[in-house]
Amino acid sequence: MSGKNIIYAQSGGVTSVINCSAYGVLKTALGSGEFEKVFVSLYGVTGLLKEEIIDLTQEDPGELEKISRLPGGFFGSCRKKLRTDEDFELFFKILDAHDIGYFFYNGGNDSMLTAKTVKEKAKEMGYDLKVVGIPKTIDNDLMETDFCPGYPTTARFNAITFMESTLDVSAMHRDSTKVFIMETMGRHAGWIVASTSLFLPNRDVQIILFPEVPFDRERFLEEVEKKVEKFGYCVVAVSEGIRWKETGDFVSKSDVKDEFGHEQLGKVGIKISNMVENELKLKTHVAILDYVQRSARHSSTKVDVDVATSAGSKAVKLALEGIDGVMVNVVRKNDEPYLWELGYVDLEKVGGSDKERKLPKEYMTEDGFNITEDFVRYALPFVKDLDVSSINPPCIPKIEFKFVKKKVVQQ
Amino acid sequence: MSGKNIIYAQSGGVTSVINCSAYGVLKTALGSGEFEKVFVSLYGVTGLLKEEIIDLTQEDPGELEKISRLPGGFFGSCRKKLRTDEDFELFFKILDAHDIGYFFYNGGNDSMLTAKTVKEKAKEMGYDLKVVGIPKTIDNDLMETDFCPGYPTTARFNAITFMESTLDVSAMHRDSTKVFIMETMGRHAGWIVASTSLFLPNRDVQIILFPEVPFDRERFLEEVEKKVEKFGYCVVAVSEGIRWKETGDFVSKSDVKDEFGHEQLGKVGIKISNMVENELKLKTHVAILDYVQRSARHSSTKVDVDVATSAGSKAVKLALEGIDGVMVNVVRKNDEPYLWELGYVDLEKVGGSDKERKLPKEYMTEDGFNITEDFVRYALPFVKDLDVSSINPPCIPKIEFKFVKKKVVQQ
Repeated sequence: MSGKNIIYAQSGGVTSVINCSAYGVLKTALGSGEFEKVFVSLYGVTGLLKEEIIDLTQEDPGELEKISRLPGGFFGSCRKKLRTDEDFELFFKILDAHDIGYFFYNGGNDSMLTAKTVKEKAKEMGYDLKVVGIPKTIDNDLMETDFCPGYPTTARFNAITFMESTLDVSAMHRDSTKVFIMETMGRHAGWIVASTSLFLPNRDVQIILFPEVPFDRERFLEEVEKKVEKFGYCVVAVSEGIRWKETGDFVSKSDVKDEFGHEQLGKVGIKISNMVENELKLKTHVAILDYVQRSARHSSTKVDVDVATSAGSKAVKLALEGIDGVMVNVVRKNDEPYLWELGYVDLEKVGGSDKERKLPKEYMTEDGFNITEDFVRYALPFVKDLDVSSINPPCIPKIEFKFVKKKVVQQ
Repeated sequence: MSGKNIIYAQSGGVTSVINCSAYGVLKTALGSGEFEKVFVSLYGVTGLLKEEIIDLTQEDPGELEKISRLPGGFFGSCRKKLRTDEDFELFFKILDAHDIGYFFYNGGNDSMLTAKTVKEKAKEMGYDLKVVGIPKTIDNDLMETDFCPGYPTTARFNAITFMESTLDVSAMHRDSTKVFIMETMGRHAGWIVASTSLFLPNRDVQIILFPEVPFDRERFLEEVEKKVEKFGYCVVAVSEGIRWKETGDFVSKSDVKDEFGHEQLGKVGIKISNMVENELKLKTHVAILDYVQRSARHSSTKVDVDVATSAGSKAVKLALEGIDGVMVNVVRKNDEPYLWELGYVDLEKVGGSDKERKLPKEYMTEDGFNITEDFVRYALPFVKDLDVSSINPPCIPKIEFKFVKKKVVQQ
């Protein structure tokens, strides 16, 4: 079995530039003339297992280009992981029915694990399937890549909004708010919360609560008090994933879990706010950015848009060269100006939650409450410059989904 | 008594463009050659009553121009209202000691009431003081002006981030989040929450909870259910100031009050989220923008920056023409392209919380859950176009505050 058609799918939490990667895949695949059909499955493997496949082979290139301007995931994403033998049997039956020989999966850690498993199962079953992973996650926690597409934009958005809010509370603190708290995403790794510092005129007014640093309530409150005494106010950036020093539990604990068994968080900012108000009797304000930071395309960086688009193209080129079972990665060639090239790395090395890249110790100050200049040197080069084509609301492409006729799954 | 010097002060919650108005005042006052000294009081009347006055007469114009690029309030703002006879006695003693004949107060409703009262007291006391108010509030609730400087930027930021988040949840809803909730400011008037709709590709997926519409829990949950059934997901924008239909209490009630007796809110988004999760068993995500929406200078509109700057200039020009006891206002001359000119209106007509401009009925759909085309025609012309000079992080001006020697208040 060796299919002539390709399929692309998006997976995991979307980013503001995952659609750039989609466009990179589609443009390069359609332009290569090497494939009979260019398919996309809706809502990642969730749609694929329902045989919800659309055919973009005849689509207007101008409309496809518009996809690259959209935040969110134009083809829909999923939280589904392929797990059971039944899942894989159905998966390959559908691929075979549509003569698919190439599978491009665009996602983060869990998705790269899925891609890796798909490749292994294909080998086991003797199905000739080229599998290439395209990195994407605002969490920036994939191994073996300088950064993950999606992260630079989220970092820039968080940096600029935190700086702006800091100037706001600085103006108000005299007889109003003393402590401003902003909760960010980044459940297990501090890359996102670290980015809030990048544009601050004075980093001393800030406290960062990293998920890598066990949360010590007393030390934190002391630090807030010290800053308020010194500056009149204090600004706090807190990762949704901080855990109590004493127990290791998430500070914001709830009973809801997602498909991957992750606990659902999101309100630790409120807890920190109440802690400061009740213990220190200081007026607080609290912002929770949630999806807003993940989808902030209007604040996309040029590097992010370029890399995300090229990563999609690169995945197709690698597959055509016969290189697969890999994820496209970003290699830094120069700090300032930021220069990069794309390479690839075995899916083995990047898939799975045991492969999460934490924020290294050298990027955090010794007291664990702020970032170092090393982090600034790492992140600022790809964070600072806006992609000016992203500043206005996008046009929605005029693409009518042409579903392929189902051959495996009952209507 | 008739002073030759002027003083400018900022008051109330700051906006992303209040510093444009500061710059307008300073540039025009310094350029006119009509004043001996150009003063600013720090932290509004809070600093003024402490005689914390800085002298900007000799400041470098290039550095002053940089102030106009900063969000927040460069000179600090306050929540203080002049109330007692002692306050006023001290106020005029300080003005007299520094030979101040012009008072420019940059604020919202409460600040215009303060300005009005200052003018009345000046008359009573025979103190020749020209008083001009400069409008500013993201709430957009001042009477007698087409919009309030600060509002267009907040509206644009909320419109773009809500649209982006909607595309995000649209991608995720298949096996993850079904309902996204964004809490906005706008305690008593629905202008801000209304703006979240402006860039949506399809307004039908949204529910808006306006502070003008009593909150009916059952009707709301029914509406969420209907939308999720129809579209697979639903997005909700909720004003911090919604009140229960049954009691008239804020849905998010707390015991903390600010200087003006306003109840402190901020967490209604979480309540709505819990309501949806518990009653409808639908997975939600919630964002609370808080100060981020107020200070979002990177998303400032061209009209907002131009009007805010010109309003500061206009205030000085009016005072020089002998027109005072007024607030500068914005008069719409054309919808598309948006054309405006500045005029003025008696402080009588705008000061005080009984003069809050609510969102008119014709801007809300009959069911009270969305906006009408009339609102789009009102707001979009001054919301849609970005001020491109605002997109990058600003430079902090090199201005060393030269405090005047205190003559009234003990050190």
